[in-house]
Amino acid sequence: METRVVINENERIDDLQCQGLKVISNPDVFCFGIDAVLLANYAKAKPGQRVLDMGTGNGVIPILMTGKCPGACFTGLELQEISYDLAVRSTILNGLTQQVKMVQGDIREASHLFGGASFDVITVNPPYMNENHGLVNPLGHKAIARHEIACTLEDVIREASRMLTFRGCFYMVHRPRRLGEIICTMREHRLEPKELVMVHTHAHKEAKLVLVLGVKDGSAFLKVKPPLIIYGENGKYTKDMEHWTGSV
Amino acid sequence: METRVVINENERIDDLQCQGLKVISNPDVFCFGIDAVLLANYAKAKPGQRVLDMGTGNGVIPILMTGKCPGACFTGLELQEISYDLAVRSTILNGLTQQVKMVQGDIREASHLFGGASFDVITVNPPYMNENHGLVNPLGHKAIARHEIACTLEDVIREASRMLTFRGCFYMVHRPRRLGEIICTMREHRLEPKELVMVHTHAHKEAKLVLVLGVKDGSAFLKVKPPLIIYGENGKYTKDMEHWTGSV
Repeated sequence: METRVVINENERIDDLQCQGLKVISNPDVFCFGIDAVLLANYAKAKPGQRVLDMGTGNGVIPILMTGKCPGACFTGLELQEISYDLAVRSTILNGLTQQVKMVQGDIREASHLFGGASFDVITVNPPYMNENHGLVNPLGHKAIARHEIACTLEDVIREASRMLTFRGCFYMVHRPRRLGEIICTMREHRLEPKELVMVHTHAHKEAKLVLVLGVKDGSAFLKVKPPLIIYGENGKYTKDMEHWTGSV
Repeated sequence: METRVVINENERIDDLQCQGLKVISNPDVFCFGIDAVLLANYAKAKPGQRVLDMGTGNGVIPILMTGKCPGACFTGLELQEISYDLAVRSTILNGLTQQVKMVQGDIREASHLFGGASFDVITVNPPYMNENHGLVNPLGHKAIARHEIACTLEDVIREASRMLTFRGCFYMVHRPRRLGEIICTMREHRLEPKELVMVHTHAHKEAKLVLVLGVKDGSAFLKVKPPLIIYGENGKYTKDMEHWTGSV
């Protein structure tokens, strides 16, 4: 199913180690991280469900999710032309243009673009850093992906809530340092936090990432799942981590 | 320093396995659990600081804390006469009447009783269960300790916030299922969540308890500490758990 697509200078093809899936990355613009891989593994979608990835970058999350959620219909929303172009070519490269549709547009206006209650599942790996987080990366494209320049946490949550159907699922990966704001903003916008997975690089380190599941208009009952430890004492991936990344 | 105190029928003396400290328990009224021991270990107080334990039961938390926080001044607040009486006799039993003062009173009116900004540190192991949590234990004393009959989560947090000094510390143990409400209610009442410790019975089970540290008027920056796993694969306490319970 592979189709010829142009790969530009500074770009590379990353093998996602899952069913031959690949994405085109550009180290100056957008490369995916372990957080995107974990989120793609964590999120679930049934056949026929409509899934939106907000701020999709090169499309790594919906492309990976096609591998484990057959029959779901994916949309990726990306603001930046240069990342959107990576995402479009990545779907062509995988022969996934039927399953994954890429749209260029602004998260802050996403519910106007797609309409209310238009998705069953939303995934998002948003910019982690707000004005309290040190220097802004001087390269503009990366800065927009990492810092809350083009959209805030509240923009993401507000628009996600508007676009989700009743009892629709919101999956986000973020930094634990912002968990207080995340939980309160989600509840303000009727996305009830239902699950957290704390991700620790080592068993005796603080959590580096948190995976959150919120349910639109869900009841208040939160589960904190078993912690995910990335590295064992031998410095290699733990069995849990192999399971997480291998089963995508 | 041990003094003769009356031990009634149905009561027993529990050895706290820490510096010879003991409490009087009554299985029909109040027995402490591992949650109280973990909270007493987690909370910190410096010499001269004023510490209040809200809903102290038989006083297990302040009594344990005297062992690791020398020089701090402890107060225990307890609504129920019969538990308050256990707490008073427990302080006498340990010769701690100078360090720990027991007061009978209502959490809902605690800030009127003690005044605003009257404590540097507050600890609380509140009733975990609200109206969404199954049947109420038919024995009245235990029901008040376990269910939100005599005070709600919001009562606890509101009164704690009023009684804490600027940058004072609020330590609570609770069930993860209520973490969404806990975090939002704390932030509404200017107790910023600064640390969470998830407590799991086993490494691959959901969290059973959560320890929370909030700081009065603190800035938004949350740390999720390494998870505390209670039992190892051999069914015995993990080294971490031995360290937690042993170092109280």
